Amino acid sequence: MDVTVLEVAPRDGLQNEAEIVITDDKVRLIERSVAAGIRRIEAVSFVHPGRVPQMADAEAVMADVPRVSGVSYAGLVFNDRGLDRALAAGLDEINVVVVATDTLSDRNQGCTTEVGIERWHALARRAAESGIRRTVTIAAAFGCPFEGEVAPATVLELVHRVAEAGPEEIALADTIGVGTPDRVRTLVTGARAAAPHADLRCHFHNTRNTGYANAVAALDAGASVLDASTGGVGGCPFAPNATGNIATEDLLYLLHRMGIRTGIEPIEVAETGQWLGSVLGRPVPALLGRAGPFPSPT
Amino acid sequence: MDVTVLEVAPRDGLQNEAEIVITDDKVRLIERSVAAGIRRIEAVSFVHPGRVPQMADAEAVMADVPRVSGVSYAGLVFNDRGLDRALAAGLDEINVVVVATDTLSDRNQGCTTEVGIERWHALARRAAESGIRRTVTIAAAFGCPFEGEVAPATVLELVHRVAEAGPEEIALADTIGVGTPDRVRTLVTGARAAAPHADLRCHFHNTRNTGYANAVAALDAGASVLDASTGGVGGCPFAPNATGNIATEDLLYLLHRMGIRTGIEPIEVAETGQWLGSVLGRPVPALLGRAGPFPSPT
Repeated sequence: MDVTVLEVAPRDGLQNEAEIVITDDKVRLIERSVAAGIRRIEAVSFVHPGRVPQMADAEAVMADVPRVSGVSYAGLVFNDRGLDRALAAGLDEINVVVVATDTLSDRNQGCTTEVGIERWHALARRAAESGIRRTVTIAAAFGCPFEGEVAPATVLELVHRVAEAGPEEIALADTIGVGTPDRVRTLVTGARAAAPHADLRCHFHNTRNTGYANAVAALDAGASVLDASTGGVGGCPFAPNATGNIATEDLLYLLHRMGIRTGIEPIEVAETGQWLGSVLGRPVPALLGRAGPFPSPT
Repeated sequence: MDVTVLEVAPRDGLQNEAEIVITDDKVRLIERSVAAGIRRIEAVSFVHPGRVPQMADAEAVMADVPRVSGVSYAGLVFNDRGLDRALAAGLDEINVVVVATDTLSDRNQGCTTEVGIERWHALARRAAESGIRRTVTIAAAFGCPFEGEVAPATVLELVHRVAEAGPEEIALADTIGVGTPDRVRTLVTGARAAAPHADLRCHFHNTRNTGYANAVAALDAGASVLDASTGGVGGCPFAPNATGNIATEDLLYLLHRMGIRTGIEPIEVAETGQWLGSVLGRPVPALLGRAGPFPSPT
């Protein structure tokens, strides 16, 4: 079994850092990731720099990253201006987020879920004309920090509606780390039926230690791509000490020991995670870099 | 579905602490656990005090803990002297450890695996005559820090042999946190077949972030009891910063959101975990106490 791991540390991992990581370190993070075997990276976000200053250097990052054959760079896009920037910067794929609840959608994007779907369809049309790969993420698919529980039927209806734009891939995101394996199975199975022509990706945060169990359940149920961030960075600014995305190195350790191939070298990623901790000035949540591999390297 | 969570923080959680936790704090930890609904606790270890000074106050701890109807106290026992002490202290159950590899068995208990099995049989006979409940744990069932991989067939043969003593329960322990869900399924399924008359318990460490996924797999495969430690304390002294047992509060959060009942209150355990962190002078690995519950309490 082969699984694709999409590295999200440069974007989801670093976008909430109080101290902005310099462009050179972002480029170094991406270089190290590519060297370790990562072939898909969410590298940047084309959001208004006044809104997310951490991502203001998107063009500068993309100008310096290694453009190796087979490595696909993704950028988050919210509007036409963002798509223009993504195309100009030579991104390989765009990712658009549709938030499952109106309250979080309004806080994140200034619009209702309904308007978010319309924007996604318009962006998907323009992207298709430009020949750039399009993915769409349903955020808060497992729960919303403001509205609480989100019904699976609501999420699956959203999957059906975003699928009508013909994305190459649809992602389900547990934005606040409240998903559990049973719900993951329900949503992944349902989403595959609702969008049979799109690949299914999952995005888990390990905020309450459910993230890796969710990843295993997602693969069991037929997801083929998992997001993860080197070091497990990406804590939410509203929840101090909460860990972020599931860590790439720990996910790789788990998958490889289960005989699932990714083409990525866990130890190299763990070393990058430790390095990223030194850049951020604090230990990262990932554990492989602290505990060491098993069996021990000879 | 109902699952029993066996609290191991007082023993496995605290036995490796460089600074010895005082008896009063151990008793307070146990009191708080019982108040939160925990009904099985590995409270003490009857090991030679020169070998594990952290557990030297076993009798004092047991003299002060609340002896509430329905709460079962377990103590780790290595030899006849330990069994004598467990009986004198009024323990409800003894747990004997058989280590799956000779090297780790020798380091931990000063004997081969074969001699460990013989000792277990002798202790089980004496315990049966005394009417105390007997459980046995196969340590290093998923890998050994000295010998590396441990074959499932080796572990299942051990399960078969320890089962001949008629224990009420057999446990499989991932002592160093190298198990993965596929191996958990193989071993739990095999152990149930090899020892159909014993309950099956699993003991996971989250050293490399696989512990919660393993817990879910164990329940799926038919385990009925899971060990966990409040706060997730219990790091190994040889692996600095490595997290310990899976955390009781995070496990409860995961199980309860999946509709699995335990009778234990996650928020109370999370508060105890935070308190334990203040006793130990450092943040505990458990995440629920940091991130807060979801949905939020009203």
